Amino acid sequence: MININIDLWEVKKSLKSLNKEVMDITRTRLDSLAKPINSLGTLEEMLVKCAGILGTDKLDMLKKCVVVMCADNGVLAQCVTDTPQEVTAIMTENFASGKGTVCQMAETVGADVIVVDIGVASDINNKYIINKKIAYGTRDMAVEPAMTREQVIKAIEEGIEIVVDLKAKGYEMIATGEMGIGNTTTSSAIVSVLLGRDPEDVTGKGASLFAKGIEHKVSVIKKAIALHNPDPNDPIDVLSKVGGLDIAGMAGLFIGGAYMGVPVIVDGFISGTAALLAQKIAPETKDFMLASHVSFEPGGPIVTEALGLNPILDAKMCLGEGTGAVATLPVYDMLVNVYNNMITYNDLGV
Amino acid sequence: MININIDLWEVKKSLKSLNKEVMDITRTRLDSLAKPINSLGTLEEMLVKCAGILGTDKLDMLKKCVVVMCADNGVLAQCVTDTPQEVTAIMTENFASGKGTVCQMAETVGADVIVVDIGVASDINNKYIINKKIAYGTRDMAVEPAMTREQVIKAIEEGIEIVVDLKAKGYEMIATGEMGIGNTTTSSAIVSVLLGRDPEDVTGKGASLFAKGIEHKVSVIKKAIALHNPDPNDPIDVLSKVGGLDIAGMAGLFIGGAYMGVPVIVDGFISGTAALLAQKIAPETKDFMLASHVSFEPGGPIVTEALGLNPILDAKMCLGEGTGAVATLPVYDMLVNVYNNMITYNDLGV
Repeated sequence: MININIDLWEVKKSLKSLNKEVMDITRTRLDSLAKPINSLGTLEEMLVKCAGILGTDKLDMLKKCVVVMCADNGVLAQCVTDTPQEVTAIMTENFASGKGTVCQMAETVGADVIVVDIGVASDINNKYIINKKIAYGTRDMAVEPAMTREQVIKAIEEGIEIVVDLKAKGYEMIATGEMGIGNTTTSSAIVSVLLGRDPEDVTGKGASLFAKGIEHKVSVIKKAIALHNPDPNDPIDVLSKVGGLDIAGMAGLFIGGAYMGVPVIVDGFISGTAALLAQKIAPETKDFMLASHVSFEPGGPIVTEALGLNPILDAKMCLGEGTGAVATLPVYDMLVNVYNNMITYNDLGV
Repeated sequence: MININIDLWEVKKSLKSLNKEVMDITRTRLDSLAKPINSLGTLEEMLVKCAGILGTDKLDMLKKCVVVMCADNGVLAQCVTDTPQEVTAIMTENFASGKGTVCQMAETVGADVIVVDIGVASDINNKYIINKKIAYGTRDMAVEPAMTREQVIKAIEEGIEIVVDLKAKGYEMIATGEMGIGNTTTSSAIVSVLLGRDPEDVTGKGASLFAKGIEHKVSVIKKAIALHNPDPNDPIDVLSKVGGLDIAGMAGLFIGGAYMGVPVIVDGFISGTAALLAQKIAPETKDFMLASHVSFEPGGPIVTEALGLNPILDAKMCLGEGTGAVATLPVYDMLVNVYNNMITYNDLGV
């Protein structure tokens, strides 16, 4: 890793906007191709946006990865899920050895899996896992704030630093993913606060909970929100009181994407929650995000709508790990191939 | 090509149902993987369906192709579009030389492009194009029936024969596509008749027509329907009066898929129209079809709903050529990789 000193507020101040000139050139090239104008719809918009983010109309097969932020959540003490906490650590190690769903999917499209321990509750010593551990999991938000403000900011800065490092290694597209038992509970709490929605509207069964457990999950979320009264206009406050380290780290990835000029792809409900927070911290980040799919979690469509992006995939997926984001990666290869190698109307003489 | 004698009605009589036993085995294997049950949603359903169609739970990287049915439409005499008829022949040749949008997209995922002349208005002599020409385009449906019943049946049988041949060559997944200037006009006419919808509801600007031309397009469709009064319960009658050879050929592909046990992927509005006709001719074909995307043509969502399948992609695409179907092909590679190579809960000891 590059040794740099990331300061969230300095980064925020330095954010620039998309390169509109490059976007115009890319659009003109797309419009010259021998196909009806704009007939690839959202896919064309995605490619033009990528060009604007990367600051170049010379797009070749993009070097891609998925960053999986792994962390534990103290709220598990409230029995919000029937999956044991150890699964976070087990799956974190599995990602590093190429197991796990997202690994199989990423391999198919030639994307690397970057595994980050940003707050797993046990020690992980694995050279294939980036150690950014802020804490051994968060505290139980139903009893006390999940984190300090300093921890939140540090986790976000670690996320930014990861993007700085990936950019230096030549990555041009970053999908976001996570693993953290209990992180649909924290996501539902955050979304409820940020969007002023009743927890019932944005809480689902998560990874494995049976439907009858949702009532309890909602009551825990309500209790935590009532206890801390997070300020919806202060995303750091929300994260520190009812958030998670994985979500803070992912928010950092989105801010880092805007900082470094790398497209960062939103995955589903949890990643979308992080993207919402990033937009709240720095609205410019929206222009550097790409949507992928609509999660099947009840909060999925709500987060999607609030983000104001255009996901292309709707397949009732709710696995996490970045699987929905990775599922859209091949489309970029297709688009780039069309962009670079297709005949134009001029070539045709039509 | 294999020299066989395909008879549509014999084929129809011989259609079998999905292999449920194989589907159960595939589902059990998916449910054993170390991820929340059914968390890949529609993607899992698609894989289970593929297994049932192919009749095996041993799924490896599937050999894939896209069949592009090319034909001209006599209704162009009514100026329903501002794209000249010659474009059909030009693009047909372009597909064969690897140009055209679908070629660039298919190349990325390693799918072959199979180009078929089933009714282009000019002579095409190109060894890379399968010659199944039934006629030099159809007749003008606003004046006379587009085809004879015999031509329709022959075009469908040619589509079936292509699947027989592709199966013999080892293809295990067929995406459907088309090229034929004027074929959104024929599709809108067919869908209007089959679903009893007003032509206004299912007619859009197609490949290049400006919005003000839609009124004229609708009036031509209405005139043709009023002139011939096609029987919505007789799909051959509908095709012969207001259809096209590309659509009939694609209907044959869907029937062929059910006949040979090969999954055939529906593309957008035009391919979806052919799929509707195939379902009308032989309801069993529905089980052998896979949906891909929802076309941005006004009739796209209407056809999607009528088909009763579950498309996963919604990207405002309306290019045709099979581009929407091809855009979903990489997901099958991803699913197969997950299916074959992922750890199970047993492996984990969780």
